[in-house]
This record gives sequence, structure tokens and C-alpha cells, in this order.
Amino acid sequence: MQSELRKKLLDVFSNSQDEYLSGQHLADLIGCSRTAVWKHMEELRKEGFELEAVRRKGYRITRTPERVTADEISLGLMTEFMGRHIHYEESVESTQKIAQRLVYEEAPEGTIIIAEEQLSGRGRMDRKWYSPKYTGIWLSMILRPNLPPPKAPQLTLITAVAVVQAIEEMTNLTPQIKWPNDILLNGKKVTGILTELQADADRIKSIIIGIGINVNQQVEDYPEELQPIATSLSIECNQQLKRAELVQILLLKFEKLYTLYLEKGFYPLKLLWESYAISIGRNITARTVTGSLYGKAMGITDDGVLLIEDSAGKVHQVYSADIELEN
Amino acid sequence: MQSELRKKLLDVFSNSQDEYLSGQHLADLIGCSRTAVWKHMEELRKEGFELEAVRRKGYRITRTPERVTADEISLGLMTEFMGRHIHYEESVESTQKIAQRLVYEEAPEGTIIIAEEQLSGRGRMDRKWYSPKYTGIWLSMILRPNLPPPKAPQLTLITAVAVVQAIEEMTNLTPQIKWPNDILLNGKKVTGILTELQADADRIKSIIIGIGINVNQQVEDYPEELQPIATSLSIECNQQLKRAELVQILLLKFEKLYTLYLEKGFYPLKLLWESYAISIGRNITARTVTGSLYGKAMGITDDGVLLIEDSAGKVHQVYSADIELEN
Repeated sequence: MQSELRKKLLDVFSNSQDEYLSGQHLADLIGCSRTAVWKHMEELRKEGFELEAVRRKGYRITRTPERVTADEISLGLMTEFMGRHIHYEESVESTQKIAQRLVYEEAPEGTIIIAEEQLSGRGRMDRKWYSPKYTGIWLSMILRPNLPPPKAPQLTLITAVAVVQAIEEMTNLTPQIKWPNDILLNGKKVTGILTELQADADRIKSIIIGIGINVNQQVEDYPEELQPIATSLSIECNQQLKRAELVQILLLKFEKLYTLYLEKGFYPLKLLWESYAISIGRNITARTVTGSLYGKAMGITDDGVLLIEDSAGKVHQVYSADIELEN
Repeated sequence: MQSELRKKLLDVFSNSQDEYLSGQHLADLIGCSRTAVWKHMEELRKEGFELEAVRRKGYRITRTPERVTADEISLGLMTEFMGRHIHYEESVESTQKIAQRLVYEEAPEGTIIIAEEQLSGRGRMDRKWYSPKYTGIWLSMILRPNLPPPKAPQLTLITAVAVVQAIEEMTNLTPQIKWPNDILLNGKKVTGILTELQADADRIKSIIIGIGINVNQQVEDYPEELQPIATSLSIECNQQLKRAELVQILLLKFEKLYTLYLEKGFYPLKLLWESYAISIGRNITARTVTGSLYGKAMGITDDGVLLIEDSAGKVHQVYSADIELEN
């Protein structure tokens, strides 16, 4: 119901040619109360619409938020194959779910799925990923590398490097990677990466890499419980960024790294990854399904496994865990 | 077109109440030549229909082939969850492909997909799997174990044990397992297993296990190039078998082994697997993507990896290969 009213509201403004529209007039036209109109206008403001509200005249929309449509991304895209097929949606449950369907329908390598908003975006361990409208990059990429399944985690690590490089180029900020797939600015999470694999025993059939980047959110946009642990590029660099441009840079960086990886193997990528990794050489606690492990992070193996040396000097291999850094 | 005629032909016989129907009469009714009628009748005979052809009277169908419909399988099925959702089709491209769609649509654990015929069934390495109509079991099972992705190969091994046990119970034959997923009778292939994994970095989301069992084919049903390497249960035990019953036994055996595995881990299953494995302790050649390795098969690891000791005493881990046994 709400989105129906919202659509009517935007239609009315689209047809009003920059005129001011009074709250009562809007309420009559779309069939709701003046209070409801006011509430919708506030929500539009949060989504990046710029509004003017003038007494006795009414409301006017002076700027609409920038979008990440297929056209916005394609214009100026420098890649060979990444993002050459774009599936764009205004609002989705999750881009990963759509990617799964497109994989089933034989979508080619490099296909991306991008949305302005995810209603039930997910991160690792099925945790919620907050993906509000027009403010971030909610993206899934489809890859079809001819590799054995144990190599799949390497692609998560390569993606992390691509995201870091894209953020560096776009903002001059230098993010850090927390194993396996968190990207941090000032210790707060700015990006999450989720890799989904489809494979038989011998070969990867497809990989879907989901990337969520917080771009233009402001601190007050976050639910209170997320404020201490989440941030956005805009919060950290004090400016609004053009999301479509960041997507273009990200796709190009990823394509270069991925091509290098397929040609030269994981070693050069591993060096790059380690150069951005926050945890290497530090004492950390790794919380796994079976318990906690405390020790010094030594590095990663070629399989993307984290190596932790405990106080007795024994080196443990950690496949899946949440990492906490010692201050 | 052909299947349209076939359908008409079977309809005519269904409505004829055991009467004999002449070739000319059939040709007139379904709108084709008498030669075409004769060709169709021969094909029906190959598919397991029993026909009587009497001079001056015509044709009569005396027995139709047994089927593996949801009803045939459900009646008498002793399982808790395996096969409690059955998706049956007369003819499909491949049951794996349908399973992929059902996984996407959130089909529950234990769902099976079964067809009388696969038009493009596949085995490992995308090799063709010959799946002619009404003669074999062409089946995919959907599982959703809460396990990390590296455990997936164990499920292929467990499935092999379940198939061997089901064949033992049904026929008193004792098949052997050739690592990783071939089941042999007298050195010829009677079953293939194909495991497809969908996972994120931490957890298996679904596994689709495809099983192809040659049941009622006769030697002459096979293309010449397959005759030296493929066999069927019927060829080996000299009788026709009820496929639906074999499916029921297989599902029950699998469910018991799978439940044991989830409760007790892989160790008891590994012992069972090794007890049926033909290659353990013998000299073999393993052909991998990168080359060949000759040595003695020592066993498998908990990850389902094959261990081969070469002549210098070095033990190699083989993740994916074709195995050839030394005579």
C-alpha cells in the first residue's frame, strides 16, 4: 500500500513541472491525510530527494537521487566482460536470489544484478544486511571460472582487493580487510562480501559474489545498534559519491584482478590481499562454530585459510570464523 | 511430432479393450503410414511393452512397462523424509536441471526428481549418460545438510554405499565401488553418481545428488561402444526388476546411512565405503587434468580424497581423477 501511495506522489510531482504543491492538494490527489503526505516527504528526503517546503505554497522536489540503472553503469564502462549484462531493479528481496535464477537460466560470465534497495539482503551466516534505498551499492556478480571447487574462497579474497582498490580510487580513503570478507574504514564495516558456489565434485559451475557497499548513508540513517559498527564512504570522506561511477571502477578493478588470477594463479593476488589485511601479524580471537581460538594471525594459505599461531607455537588452520582484533 | 503420434497410438490401444487392431486401421486412425505404425510398435517393444502381432488380426498390447511414478514409489515407501516429495516426469532433459530449479524454489530436504527417460543426462566432467526410456532409474535427490562445503564429497561416497546396499538387497549381486563414484558389476559400469553443490563460504545450502542406475536394459539395447564398459542389473542377474521397488530400497538405505553420518560423522561410513571399494590396496593409474599418476591406492581421507603411494613411497592426494585398475 505504502509504495502505491509513494508512486502516486512521485507521479504527481513529475507532472507538476516544478510548481509548488500544497500538502492539502497532494493529500486530495493521492487520497491520504496531510500527515501521511508529510511522512512520505520526509522519507523521500532520507532517500536522497532534495525538497523545498515553502509556507503557504507547499512542496517542490528540486533534485532526485542518482540511480544505478543499466544505462548509468554502461555509459563509460571500460570493462571487457564484467557488467556487460546488467539486470537492474528498483527494489528486490536480494540480488543474490535473482542471480541464482539467472545462473539457472545460463546467464553469461560477468552478468551483474544491481538494485536500489534490498528488502531482505543477507550477509555471511544468513545475517541481515541493511540495504536502504538509493544509498548503497547492492550488487551480485556471476562468474563461471573453470576451476576446481576448493579454489572458490580465493575469489572472495580477490573481490575484497577489488573493492578496496575501487574505494581508494574513488575517495582516497584506505580501507582495511578483516579476514575473510569484511572491509573496514576506521574500524567500522563499510562493505560485506558473500560468495555462493555452485559446483560438481570436479569443477566450479558458477560463483555468485554478492557485494554490499555503504556509500551515501549518513550516521543518523543507521539503526542505533549499527552505528558503532557500520559506516559509509560518505561519512568517512564527507561528500556524496556517484554510485554508478563507483560500480564502474569496481567492475574494472575486479576484471583486471580476476584476469591476472586466471593467468598467473593466486600468488600475486595473495600478496595484494595481505597488503591490505588488518589482522596479519596481530593477536586475534577467532570465534568458530565449535569454540574460540586466541593467537597471532600469521597469514592465509593458498586456499584462503587463515593461519593462527597459539601461545604454545602451534599453528591452526581456520576455515570459517568471526575475527576479533586485540586492541 | 513423433511423440504426438505415439500418444495417439497408445490412446487408441487404451480405448480398444484388448481387441486386436490392424496396421491399416491404426494407420487410418492416427494418420500415418502402415510402415510408420510398424516402426512405432517396434519402439514400444524396446521400451518394455509386450506386444502380440497376429496375422490377419493385427496388434494387441498385452503388458505395459512398469513405471516409477510418484504413486508407484510412495506406496510402501518406508522412509521418514527421503522421497516424501516426489517430482515425476515421463521425459526430461536431465533430472539434475529440474532439481536445480526446485532448489531455487526452496524444495525441502529429501525431495526427489525422477523420470522415465533423460534426453541429455550427464555424468561427471559433463560426459553423456545414456538414459533410455523405462529401463533405468534416473533420479536426483535434494539434501540440505548443515555442514561446511569441504564435506560435500563425503555425501557422494555415502550415496555409493547406499546404491551398493540397495543392489545387494534387490539382486544378491555384490557390486564394487571404483573411486570416486562408479559402481561396477563384473568390471562394467552399472551406476553413476553426480554431486552438485550449492554453498556459501561457511555452509552447504543444498546438495543435489544425481543417480543413474542401469536396471532392465539388455546387451543389445546399448550402443556398440558402450557394450564393453556398461552393464545393467538385468543383464547380470538374468531377470527383469521392478524399478519402483529398487527406488524404495535405495531411499531407505540412503536415509539410514545419511542419518548415521549426521549423528556419528564420516568414520563409520568410510569403513563401509572401503569395504566395497575395488581399488584399495591395488595398483592403479589416476588420470588427472594435469597428468597421470601410477601407484598403490592406500585408501581415502575423511575428505574423500584418494591416497596413492608411488614407487618411491611418496603418498599423493588425488582430488579428482579417472582411475584405471591394473589387471
